[in-house]
Formats: sequence, C-alpha cells, structure tokens
Amino acid sequence: MLHGKVLVAQGGGPTAVINQSMVGAVLESRKFRNVDLVYGAHHGVRGIINEEFLDLTQETSHNLEAVAQTPSSALGSTRDKPDLKYCQEVFKVLQAHGIAYFFYIGGNDSSDTVRIVSEEAHKAGYPLRCIHIPKTIDNDLVHNDHTPGFPSAARFVAQAFMGANLDNSALKGVYIAVVMGRHAGFLTAASALGKKFPDDGPHLIYIPERNFSVDSFLGDVKACYEKHGRCVVAVSEGIHDENGAPIITKLSKDVEKDAHGNIQLSGTGALADLLCEEVKAKLGIKRVRGDTFGYVQRSFIGCVSDLDQREAREVGEKAVQYAMWGAVDGSVTIQRTGFYSVDYKLLPLEMVAGKTRVMEDHFIAESGTDVTDAFRMYLRPLLGSGMPDAFRLRLNSVPKILKR
Amino acid sequence: MLHGKVLVAQGGGPTAVINQSMVGAVLESRKFRNVDLVYGAHHGVRGIINEEFLDLTQETSHNLEAVAQTPSSALGSTRDKPDLKYCQEVFKVLQAHGIAYFFYIGGNDSSDTVRIVSEEAHKAGYPLRCIHIPKTIDNDLVHNDHTPGFPSAARFVAQAFMGANLDNSALKGVYIAVVMGRHAGFLTAASALGKKFPDDGPHLIYIPERNFSVDSFLGDVKACYEKHGRCVVAVSEGIHDENGAPIITKLSKDVEKDAHGNIQLSGTGALADLLCEEVKAKLGIKRVRGDTFGYVQRSFIGCVSDLDQREAREVGEKAVQYAMWGAVDGSVTIQRTGFYSVDYKLLPLEMVAGKTRVMEDHFIAESGTDVTDAFRMYLRPLLGSGMPDAFRLRLNSVPKILKR
Repeated sequence: MLHGKVLVAQGGGPTAVINQSMVGAVLESRKFRNVDLVYGAHHGVRGIINEEFLDLTQETSHNLEAVAQTPSSALGSTRDKPDLKYCQEVFKVLQAHGIAYFFYIGGNDSSDTVRIVSEEAHKAGYPLRCIHIPKTIDNDLVHNDHTPGFPSAARFVAQAFMGANLDNSALKGVYIAVVMGRHAGFLTAASALGKKFPDDGPHLIYIPERNFSVDSFLGDVKACYEKHGRCVVAVSEGIHDENGAPIITKLSKDVEKDAHGNIQLSGTGALADLLCEEVKAKLGIKRVRGDTFGYVQRSFIGCVSDLDQREAREVGEKAVQYAMWGAVDGSVTIQRTGFYSVDYKLLPLEMVAGKTRVMEDHFIAESGTDVTDAFRMYLRPLLGSGMPDAFRLRLNSVPKILKR
Repeated sequence: MLHGKVLVAQGGGPTAVINQSMVGAVLESRKFRNVDLVYGAHHGVRGIINEEFLDLTQETSHNLEAVAQTPSSALGSTRDKPDLKYCQEVFKVLQAHGIAYFFYIGGNDSSDTVRIVSEEAHKAGYPLRCIHIPKTIDNDLVHNDHTPGFPSAARFVAQAFMGANLDNSALKGVYIAVVMGRHAGFLTAASALGKKFPDDGPHLIYIPERNFSVDSFLGDVKACYEKHGRCVVAVSEGIHDENGAPIITKLSKDVEKDAHGNIQLSGTGALADLLCEEVKAKLGIKRVRGDTFGYVQRSFIGCVSDLDQREAREVGEKAVQYAMWGAVDGSVTIQRTGFYSVDYKLLPLEMVAGKTRVMEDHFIAESGTDVTDAFRMYLRPLLGSGMPDAFRLRLNSVPKILKR
C-alpha cells in the first residue's frame, strides 16, 4: 500500500449525485492508516494546476454526509480539457504535494486525463495510484451498464414529460422539449418512461443516433396531431442531418443571425424555438410551444433516484478500495448482474478513456422515433423508488340536449 | 337548497393542484341529497357551449382521489375568454341541462365568467348558484392571501434556483432563467427562497412591478460578476420598460425577425436568449447561459407543496358548502389568520372578478432587484414540508508549494 496523500477532484458537468461519489471516496480514504491527508481539488484539474486544494480531512463527517445529498459539484468543476502538457502540469503538482492516490470523478474526457496522468507517473517512476470514478448524465461511458448521474437526470426528464403530457392534454397543441445529450440519446429517450396510457406523450422522440430530417419530422408531427389532436415531442439537442450537420445550424439558414453574428448552440432555447417555427409555418398549427430543459435537468434539487444515490456513493467507495488493496490503475465501472442488481469492476483506463457510447440499436424502435420495451426494462429500475404516477378521469359522456 | 345537477369546470392554465379543487367539489357535492348528478365540463367553458359533459357521479371515489394527486386539469381546459354573448350561451346550456350549481375553478378571467353567468341567471329568474374557486400560479387574485397552485409552482421555482445556483457555483458564469408571470412577479420572486448562504444566487431578481432598463440590468450583472465571479439572475417573462413595452420586443429590434416575420412572446426561449446576448456582447463575459422554465414549472409531477394540496382541496370543498348552506353567489378566497393558518371566506364575485393583484411594495426591496424579509416570511410556509436543503464544503485551503 502506497503511503501519502489522497486527492479527489470532480470534472465536467455537475450531476445530482456527483457529491455522493466524492464523499464516498473521502470517507473511505479517511479510514486508511497509510493516508496522511485527504485533499479536494477546487474546480477540477484547473484547481490542481493552480494548487487550489481543500483539506477534506478537516471536514466533519456530518457535513460530508449533508453535502453528499446536495446536487452539483461541491468541489467545483471546470470545462478545461487537458492535453498532454496540461496533464504533465497536473502530475508535477501531485508530485510536489506528495499525492499517492488520485481519484477523478468525471466522464470520457476526465477518464482520459486520468489515463495520461497515470502514464506520466509511470514514466517518471513516481508511485501514484490513479482511479477514474464514472459520472455523466449523458450515460455515454463505454463498458458501463449506466453511469451515476444519468438515473437522476433521466428521472427528472421522465417526470417533466409526465407533467408536460398532462398539461398538453388539458390545453391541446404541439409541445416540443429539447433535452441534453449531444452524442448519446439516452436522456432524451428517458422521456418515454413518462408514458402510461397508450395515447400519452411523448409521441415522438428524436435522438442523435438517427439522422434527423425536417420533412420527416413535420410529417410525423402532422400524423400525430391528426390522430390525437395534439403532439408531445422529445428532441435531443444533438440531432443532426445525414451529413452530421447539427439541425440548429441547418434551420438557422432560414432565420437571420443575431446582432452579433452568432447563433447560440447550447444554453439557449434556439433549437426548440426554431422547430416550433417550422411546425407553425408549415403545418399551420396555432398552439405550438417549445421548452428547453436546460440546466434544471441536471441540477434540480429534490428529484433524485435513490438507486443513483447509492450507486454513486458505492463507485466512490469502491474506487478507494481498488486503489488500496489493488496494484493497478483503472476506471471503476458498473456491471448489471440481475433485475435489479449490479457489481463494480475495475477496468483498464484505456478501455474507457475518451470513448463514447451511444444508444444500442435494440433500444431504438424501428420507426426511429420511439424506444423499445428492452429500453424500458433497462431504464425503469434505475429511476429508483417513489416514482410519481398520473391518473385520469373516465370519459362517461353525458348525452347532448341542445345540439343533439 | 336548490335541487338539480352540479357542474364543475376548470379554466385557464393548469396547475399542480387544480385537480384537488375539482375533486374536493365533486366529492362534497356527491354527499348532498338535493344533488341529482355531478357533471364535469370537458375543456372548460368551451366544453359547456359544446355540451361536452362527463358524468362524474359514475366515477369511483378511489380514482377521484388518485386524480386529485395528479397535476394539470383532468377535465381539460381552454384559453377561451368568454364575452357577454359567450356567457349567455353558457347559461343557456346550464339551463337546458338543469344545472343548479355551477363551480368554476380558475383565475381572474374565469371569475369574471362566473360573475356574468350569475348575472344572466338572475336576469332570467333561473335559480342557479354560481361559485368561483380560486386557482392560478401567478398569485394575482385580489382579496386572497395567495391562490392555490402558486405555492407548488413557487416551490418548483425555488428548488430549480437552488440547483441552478449550485450548478453555477461549480461552473462559474452568468445564468439567467425566465419565470412565468406576465403582470405579477410573485413566481419570479419565489426564486429568492432558493437562497441559503449569503453569496447564493439568485443575485438579481427582475419583476414586472418595476420598470426594466437594459442598461441598469447590465450594470447590475457587471457589479455582481465582479463581486462573486458569477451571477444568477431570475427574470419574469413580463418585464417591460418605463412605457410598458415588453423588453422582448425592445431587444428584438437588435435582431432580425424570423423567416415568417414573427418574434415569439411566450412558450419560447427568446427572452432569455436575448438577455444572454446582451451580457455577452456588452460585458464580454464568456460563459453566459439562459434557461426558460416554461411549462415544466406549472405541471411538473413530484414537486408539490403539501400545504397547497390541502388548501386546493379545501377551497373546492368549501365552495360546495357555501353553495349548499348559503344563499349568495361568490368567490371563495383564502385569508391568512396566523403563522401559519388560514380561513376561507366567500366574497362577492365583483370584488375579485377580472381584477389583477401585483406584488405589494413591502415585498420588494429598495433596489428593485430583490425581495424583503416580509416576502420570505409570507412565502416560506406556503412551500410546504420537506423542502430540500443545500450544503457546501468548508474552505480549509491547503498552502501552495510550487506557486508560493
């Protein structure tokens, strides 16, 4: 067992449960005698190269437990994507501070950072144990059944669509909501779990795994509107045409650019608005509304999957156990073993690092605008306990008197 | 006591608890012997003039209780704003179907419809008891301490900002979220209840009760960004300049109109996007993100104030009791009697109908961009039990080694 300090860092976009992983790693590390101190990097790898460390050994376990229940990255995060030189800087700082264990919680980019730092340490002959802890609402890490953070975001999206469907059913029209996920459609597809009755929305689901055509989209919406008198649509922000061009840039040809010459691609409501314009203009439907779930979907407090909480905690704890009792670096992964049970496996960093998983074909319906029962079976247990349920009145119609 | 049928209808925008009021009225009505049948109007007043009634006497009480817990208008709603002629049509249908009790759940417009229908019945000498049951997420009914539906929407907004603030604190920048409420700022102001620590966001709150100036806004954001390195802003969709012109139309002068010559005013992300553009262009801040809470805020399932549930149920029940044991038409109102307790009072329809309440001055801070403690005291109990709480790590900084 290496002797020295532990460093924990959080990278990329926050999730509802990323603090569970951090606290799992910190509390587990504090149990080991060979650990001098437990540091947290303030604002991810950027905090490392700036030597901004917090001493988490001085944090009460009570407060750590409270922070674990709080969404978003309590250590702060960064959007920096380190290249080799950046990672060499990271390594230098770790060395200077006597870090023996480096735990980095993040997605594909973060796992690649861990891989490079691990290589640098090997090259320098410096004893450093590097472990990547999985996290991403996009669910796009390979060799993982799913990733911590995704279940809670999926629960938010499913609940949001349950409500939006009820709203749209009370005041009929077309409702389009844009969901996060640039390359993988998992989170957008989670909207399907909001459906209960056969005519419930979302009636159409568009994901980046299938090419998007504005004409087919308009045809789909028209058919649905004619059938149900309404249409609820889930759209991934990452939809693109057959050449891979994002739909937002395609549609933006029809509209002028803003005063500053830019069309925003994320953190805006532009894609939903543009699709709504298309529906209004080409289909002549009056009540067309567009929402973009935005940041609410990944950091909303009070809509968390309890299963996600537990697993996020366990990957943090397991990371430390693998680091202490094992002799190799790696990435902690989630493997499904039953309905529903999981196990955690440490895989070589290069198996996970920098790779992107997308939705498997058997999760996507033939039509390309719906999910399969296999996907519902896959996702349902992840949403956790206490999912709300929607009910409706029976339509016992009364005979007309005046307009018989 | 009048003998005949009961008709219940839901109007305007759905809320998370409007079905509680409907079920309260239906179940209470079914207890009275002088009530033959209990009807529900399918899609509000539009359903009445189309004679689209559902027989709710055939509905199980078990299913009614389940529907009561479900957000959005289970009977369906309408955006129709009846004029005198429309109300005369409504009255004709009520008369033809032998309706003796008319309960209409809605906001200002709906209360005005009840008022006109009541007058028509009086003129015609037809015995009809008309009661308005309050509902609106905007909280803009006069003579009410608050209105059912507002507390749950306020809870969503507060929780959304708690999360957005944590997210913005992990990945710093400017975050602007647009909240519903065209004339009254109550719902936008509810964002303040997401604050815990002194430097938490929302740092700036813009409501329609104060004139909005783009220049002051930019100055406020700049000052906040310089102080905290970040800025979280809550904006009402109804903000306007000193002449009452909506800001979205003002800012839209800077951008081209879309291919169809329109700028959308609601159900779009345009206002948030335009404000973000201003901040990027004029303040040179890079990470600027805009969200529009949209329909999620009023119909999200699983984020409901239990106090709101109970009160929404009680106003429905009280409406029936006032109708049965009283001799006058009116609007059920919520009166606060303690910290926290309420009572329900039947007021004459003309006192409530068609009037709009806005935020009282003592709820708005001198700066015009924050709320007062009086507002916090007013709103906190309405949010109900089990509000989530946010925690943070203590900043026990570690001394630098390389960059001393």
